[in-house]
Amino acid sequence: MSPEEFRRFGHEVVDWIAGYLARPEDYPVLAQVEPGQLRSQLPPNPPEGGEPMAEILEDFRQYVVPAVTHWNHPSFFAYFATSASAPGILGEMLSAAFDAKAMLWRTSPASTELEEVALDWLRQLMGLPEEFGGVIYDTASVGTMHAVAAAREALDLRVREDGMSGRADLPLLRLYASEQAHSSVEKALIALGLGQRSLVKVPADAEFRMDAAALARLIDEDRRAGHLPFCVVATVGTTSTTSIDPVPLVADVCERERLWLHVDAAYAGSAAVAPELRHVLDGCERADSLVTNPHKWLFTPFDLSALYSRRLDVLRRAFALTPEYLRTPEQDAVRNGSDYGVQLGRRFRALKLWMILRYFGHEGLAALIREHCRLARLFADWVEASPDWELLAPVPLSVVCFRARPEVEGDLDALNERLMNAVNATGELFLSHTKLHGVFTLRLAVGNIRTAEAHVRRAWELLNEKLSEISDEG
Amino acid sequence: MSPEEFRRFGHEVVDWIAGYLARPEDYPVLAQVEPGQLRSQLPPNPPEGGEPMAEILEDFRQYVVPAVTHWNHPSFFAYFATSASAPGILGEMLSAAFDAKAMLWRTSPASTELEEVALDWLRQLMGLPEEFGGVIYDTASVGTMHAVAAAREALDLRVREDGMSGRADLPLLRLYASEQAHSSVEKALIALGLGQRSLVKVPADAEFRMDAAALARLIDEDRRAGHLPFCVVATVGTTSTTSIDPVPLVADVCERERLWLHVDAAYAGSAAVAPELRHVLDGCERADSLVTNPHKWLFTPFDLSALYSRRLDVLRRAFALTPEYLRTPEQDAVRNGSDYGVQLGRRFRALKLWMILRYFGHEGLAALIREHCRLARLFADWVEASPDWELLAPVPLSVVCFRARPEVEGDLDALNERLMNAVNATGELFLSHTKLHGVFTLRLAVGNIRTAEAHVRRAWELLNEKLSEISDEG
Repeated sequence: MSPEEFRRFGHEVVDWIAGYLARPEDYPVLAQVEPGQLRSQLPPNPPEGGEPMAEILEDFRQYVVPAVTHWNHPSFFAYFATSASAPGILGEMLSAAFDAKAMLWRTSPASTELEEVALDWLRQLMGLPEEFGGVIYDTASVGTMHAVAAAREALDLRVREDGMSGRADLPLLRLYASEQAHSSVEKALIALGLGQRSLVKVPADAEFRMDAAALARLIDEDRRAGHLPFCVVATVGTTSTTSIDPVPLVADVCERERLWLHVDAAYAGSAAVAPELRHVLDGCERADSLVTNPHKWLFTPFDLSALYSRRLDVLRRAFALTPEYLRTPEQDAVRNGSDYGVQLGRRFRALKLWMILRYFGHEGLAALIREHCRLARLFADWVEASPDWELLAPVPLSVVCFRARPEVEGDLDALNERLMNAVNATGELFLSHTKLHGVFTLRLAVGNIRTAEAHVRRAWELLNEKLSEISDEG
Repeated sequence: MSPEEFRRFGHEVVDWIAGYLARPEDYPVLAQVEPGQLRSQLPPNPPEGGEPMAEILEDFRQYVVPAVTHWNHPSFFAYFATSASAPGILGEMLSAAFDAKAMLWRTSPASTELEEVALDWLRQLMGLPEEFGGVIYDTASVGTMHAVAAAREALDLRVREDGMSGRADLPLLRLYASEQAHSSVEKALIALGLGQRSLVKVPADAEFRMDAAALARLIDEDRRAGHLPFCVVATVGTTSTTSIDPVPLVADVCERERLWLHVDAAYAGSAAVAPELRHVLDGCERADSLVTNPHKWLFTPFDLSALYSRRLDVLRRAFALTPEYLRTPEQDAVRNGSDYGVQLGRRFRALKLWMILRYFGHEGLAALIREHCRLARLFADWVEASPDWELLAPVPLSVVCFRARPEVEGDLDALNERLMNAVNATGELFLSHTKLHGVFTLRLAVGNIRTAEAHVRRAWELLNEKLSEISDEG
């Protein structure tokens, strides 16, 4: 494609994006398509000859866009609501053009050094200590996997060299996380060959926070059974309810027992950017590692997850492996990104984060997070004030767990699931659910950069409308 | 940022990219900066207030761009030369704007289904059988890690459930790969807890291809020692020389021994798109899994790696884990991407690949690959015809391994390393090296979409100029 053509189609794409971001509400938030619909609309074979870009973009608009679920929609309240800010999109455009593979310092000095700068800025914004160095990965799942691998390496059991198969000398390694911890912890253990048996689920209290006394007891029991405790994962902002584990107490246990403390702050780490919420990270300054996702609540286009650790040397020892074809004259004087993980090539992700931190500034980011928390609180107040609804968990941040509980008799789980499917089918908003104490629970997650009070208010109206429709139908 | 502002800055960024892609040769290919230079030019603290986008873009041009190593430069001949095509960049722009997390079908039906369509098209272009289903990951390192995890799962040893620590019943698991295999194979074993000891390096022949007879012998020896062979990784297009392991012979061994055969075709899989090169994948139709990187030699912006497997069910069994908050009504009728790996969130990567396959078509892609092979052959011919230079490996595809070997006495390794550093310091081109049979070897890798005969010719001239300068200096 000639530069002139790229310019023309690039402008066309930018205009399309500008229009899209100006009115995401023109689209249903949850794609209103059947499984297989898009696939059936596209040819089963690739074209022999090239096709005009204009036609490709036309098909994109006609077939692809209707099958998109719009994370940019201000009434996307499912999972953790996340969204890409404009400066982040501009950063991704430039990164895509550079197409750097930042495996070594020399293959992209800009990526390597901007990663150090942007992650250090973010560390300061979150109030983490200076000893915490950072690494960018794609996702928190991958960051957590690497953190647990570092914890394993820190045992000095020659797992890197000798592995774990064919060894009668290795006790059962055990990792502790609350029953509310994210599934990525279990997946990390599966991938790392530690298996589901190595996960000890620590009970949570009535507010879904890890019970630190139970943690201590479980570790003690494991030691007496001859197992080897090696890591605790605490969560700051669990996926179901955004509950915050008592990290200071957990850190006490980890220090006493000499266990690696990893903190999953994928969602709530960003909250600490607001000074009045910095307390959510209390105790995290004592962690060995902590993962947080700017692509969750810091308006950074997916993917960009940051792993911080005071022991990056251990992580490096676990993964560095330099074949001859990757040796460089400067290798001892620089940081080579691929030394810190499974991935060799790494995208130039730091650029978008650097642009976002500058464009919004500390105050701008804090204001957005503050407003999201206010909106969640507002919604929670409506729930609390209504006889037909109830809160099912505290609301420390921007997610509300609730359900309909009308006066009439009936199966509340079935009612609430039906209600969720009914509001989602309107395309006006998108909610997801969880289960708390075995109860089907609706979640309203505020986090989208475009979400305003009107959207939260409309969600409340719509939920009440659908509830009354369902109640009328019996 | 208002839509109008996004439009304005978006156009500015597109214009900058268009200008950049029109003249990447205006920049030194290898960034001419010292370690720490960029970092020292940027403020150590993040801004309190937001900054104007115009200023951020100005700093981008002034500080960031000079620290970029330009993978788009047509004289980037290092590692595997790769480059982003214009339709791929347009696709990335749209993906960045959608900001989808395609963990479940419903969170991005378009991403899920376009992934199936684009990967099936690519499968057809490479001539792989219909039973091969595909999954997109970020990198081949991650794809290979997942393939080896699937091979481990296929053993039915309850590694997912019980892990490998604290078990006296597990023999030493062993994986076989040629001594020329990529370091990602060893990293995968380290991550998976199998360890370096589980890697058996199979000798290669004089042309750097796995010795299949040695493979059979090593497996036999391991069995007699009580170890458990479980996987063989064959490489189609090794990193050092692009040598191609004898996959039909390796597949014979794997079938006889009932081992999982994974093929690393990260680079050379794309060659099969050219009908006359399809033979590079001979035997791969018998593999259990195969990884290939459209982001290497298919003009796709990094990252997009495709893992194909006839046993995706085993991969799914190894990694699927659905917590309550990710259950959906349609889950049994659709494919949920996060079931196939460690990563939960997944970028909408398929869009750029779909656009590229359509824009170039089968013929366009084949023509580019064909031309790259022609240019490498041309350069190899010059090397062979010159008394001062020698080829150090066959040139089956688009990479030439060679070195200067002038008449004068001296340390050839030191001479060639000096030569490489001298040409790289000019900023006119970028070469990397490897070692073959212990000998320092220069590599000229053709793969950039803008590389033409003139660039290869200029590389040859510059190498000869620098050789004669160095020879004159003694």
